[in-house]
Amino acid sequence: MPMDKNNDFRFLKACRGEPVDRTPVWFMRQAGRYMKAYRDLKEKYTFLELCKNPELATEVTLQPLDVLGVDAAIIFADILLPLEPMGTGLEFIAGDGPSIPRPVRTHQEMAALKPVDVDGQLGFVGDAIRMVRSEISGKIPLVGFAAAPFTLCSYMVEGGKSRDFTLTKVMMYEEPETWQGLMDKVVRVLADYMKMQVAAGAQALQVFDSWVGCLGPADYEKYILPYTRRLFKELETTGVPVINFSTGTSTMLPLVRQAGGDVMSFDWRIDLDDAWRQIGHQTPVQGNLDPNLLFASLPVIRERVHDVMRRAAGRPGHIFNLGHGILQHTPVDHVKAVVDMVHEYQHE
Amino acid sequence: MPMDKNNDFRFLKACRGEPVDRTPVWFMRQAGRYMKAYRDLKEKYTFLELCKNPELATEVTLQPLDVLGVDAAIIFADILLPLEPMGTGLEFIAGDGPSIPRPVRTHQEMAALKPVDVDGQLGFVGDAIRMVRSEISGKIPLVGFAAAPFTLCSYMVEGGKSRDFTLTKVMMYEEPETWQGLMDKVVRVLADYMKMQVAAGAQALQVFDSWVGCLGPADYEKYILPYTRRLFKELETTGVPVINFSTGTSTMLPLVRQAGGDVMSFDWRIDLDDAWRQIGHQTPVQGNLDPNLLFASLPVIRERVHDVMRRAAGRPGHIFNLGHGILQHTPVDHVKAVVDMVHEYQHE
Repeated sequence: MPMDKNNDFRFLKACRGEPVDRTPVWFMRQAGRYMKAYRDLKEKYTFLELCKNPELATEVTLQPLDVLGVDAAIIFADILLPLEPMGTGLEFIAGDGPSIPRPVRTHQEMAALKPVDVDGQLGFVGDAIRMVRSEISGKIPLVGFAAAPFTLCSYMVEGGKSRDFTLTKVMMYEEPETWQGLMDKVVRVLADYMKMQVAAGAQALQVFDSWVGCLGPADYEKYILPYTRRLFKELETTGVPVINFSTGTSTMLPLVRQAGGDVMSFDWRIDLDDAWRQIGHQTPVQGNLDPNLLFASLPVIRERVHDVMRRAAGRPGHIFNLGHGILQHTPVDHVKAVVDMVHEYQHE
Repeated sequence: MPMDKNNDFRFLKACRGEPVDRTPVWFMRQAGRYMKAYRDLKEKYTFLELCKNPELATEVTLQPLDVLGVDAAIIFADILLPLEPMGTGLEFIAGDGPSIPRPVRTHQEMAALKPVDVDGQLGFVGDAIRMVRSEISGKIPLVGFAAAPFTLCSYMVEGGKSRDFTLTKVMMYEEPETWQGLMDKVVRVLADYMKMQVAAGAQALQVFDSWVGCLGPADYEKYILPYTRRLFKELETTGVPVINFSTGTSTMLPLVRQAGGDVMSFDWRIDLDDAWRQIGHQTPVQGNLDPNLLFASLPVIRERVHDVMRRAAGRPGHIFNLGHGILQHTPVDHVKAVVDMVHEYQHE
């Protein structure tokens, strides 16, 4: 039997730190509101309907692939999907983002959280992964994903988006047993959920710690790292590469690195060469263009894409991406242009 | 004639890097909604009325001083006050924050901005400073302040608060002459405005670059640093110490240091000892407790206050502060307790 040719994808090779013909590039939220095809579907279905219907989630996942020419697909889903089976409820209010009707703020509320049967209760994500794989297998690899423990817990405690994360931090500081219980439960669900995604066909995973940058290094080390490390440790058994994504963590990258993962993804608040040097060149990296740059003109975009590529210096193990998701009104042709700029870039 | 005894305040000594008997401590937004006396006034007057009426601004400025026992007063005002005389308008909508009715998004809109007669059009701030000084002179020093150029421009371009700062960044990238013209005009107004504050009696200045952390190092160096540096250079002529405050800039502190100022203030995303080492111990520093910590219990607060103090290691030139302003629902007695913890701390 020959090796699975799916292993030859340049995205997966880069995740393993192997040399590639061209730098792989993909985008967070590459399926989404900036695309007309997506907005058309959103006129007929709610966001949660799109997530929970495997046919629709498959359609959305595939939308950007041919248009952009990216090197990876990411399953269309939401980091908050595990909240419903855990029992907090989950709503999306147009213009206002997610709202969690029964937030977790006391020990009792934490204790009442339910274990999740990921195959049964989140099986629609597995179904969508299987359907996407049957469409793209051999052409492009599929990335599964979930939130990191802190980011998921912050939504559960705050009840939605937050600017200051006061309630979450106060629980951390004042109710260590509640915090520990909450993080323990969340790690269990997230590990099971991502393992299920790999079993369904996800060929890589990304763990989104989107809001952990609200913490300083000491808090991260004490309240977050032990749990995130346990999650990454569990994901090692899947055998697929795992990307450790966070934003606003540029002052504690070596600490975030300790949590685990095969690839470190960071935002634009640090130069890519500086970040890579800090975590060590043996670790593959992903990043790190500012998503706002995609609103600039093509010559400006080119200059900045080339700057990122120059800082990567042709080292094996660089995946080009933005530092965060594509913004809502981003011009599609600019996203496509970035893919071409990355693929056409010649390292000196 | 003896030296002005106002120069003996421990806050001002620390700003100059001189040894002090106790570490000075004050807070951004130490007058504000977390205090009942302030909320009572706000029932009768709008925020802008409080800012523009020197008697009321004086009353608000004085409110926290005896209650907290802080080592500096900061004049009650708002960083956006210069916008009205520049011609963009300025409104505060309850719960929604500032709104700028005529944002600056084109070259024509930039060119139409008016020069400001700071003595005439912002003279109410000077009047308030004179009134506060007559109340507190010899007891506690008074800090004046303004926004840094980027932070003020971001409000002007976005038309209010922003999460992504897309319009501001696109102007920077795509309309360099408009950006330069805007920053030039803003630097002129801010320099005049802060010089007027010193002439009225402000004994130190703080320049708030609250949102500049949305930029990466290369953008900061190219689009911000030249203007901020010019502002700090102009402020040197005032002879009072100037605090260079920013948040989210922990990955580029040496660059932010280059902009100028006598004291570098930073947030909690970096350990104080690490930050101080990066910018050099000859530069006084201010910081850096997470404002959310003030919602924790006193033992937890004490542990974290002591951690900051330990990292400062008793070096001359440390001013204790939060990494950002006091949050709305902060318990007043916790703020007071922090002042006592700092004053009672004994360096080993």
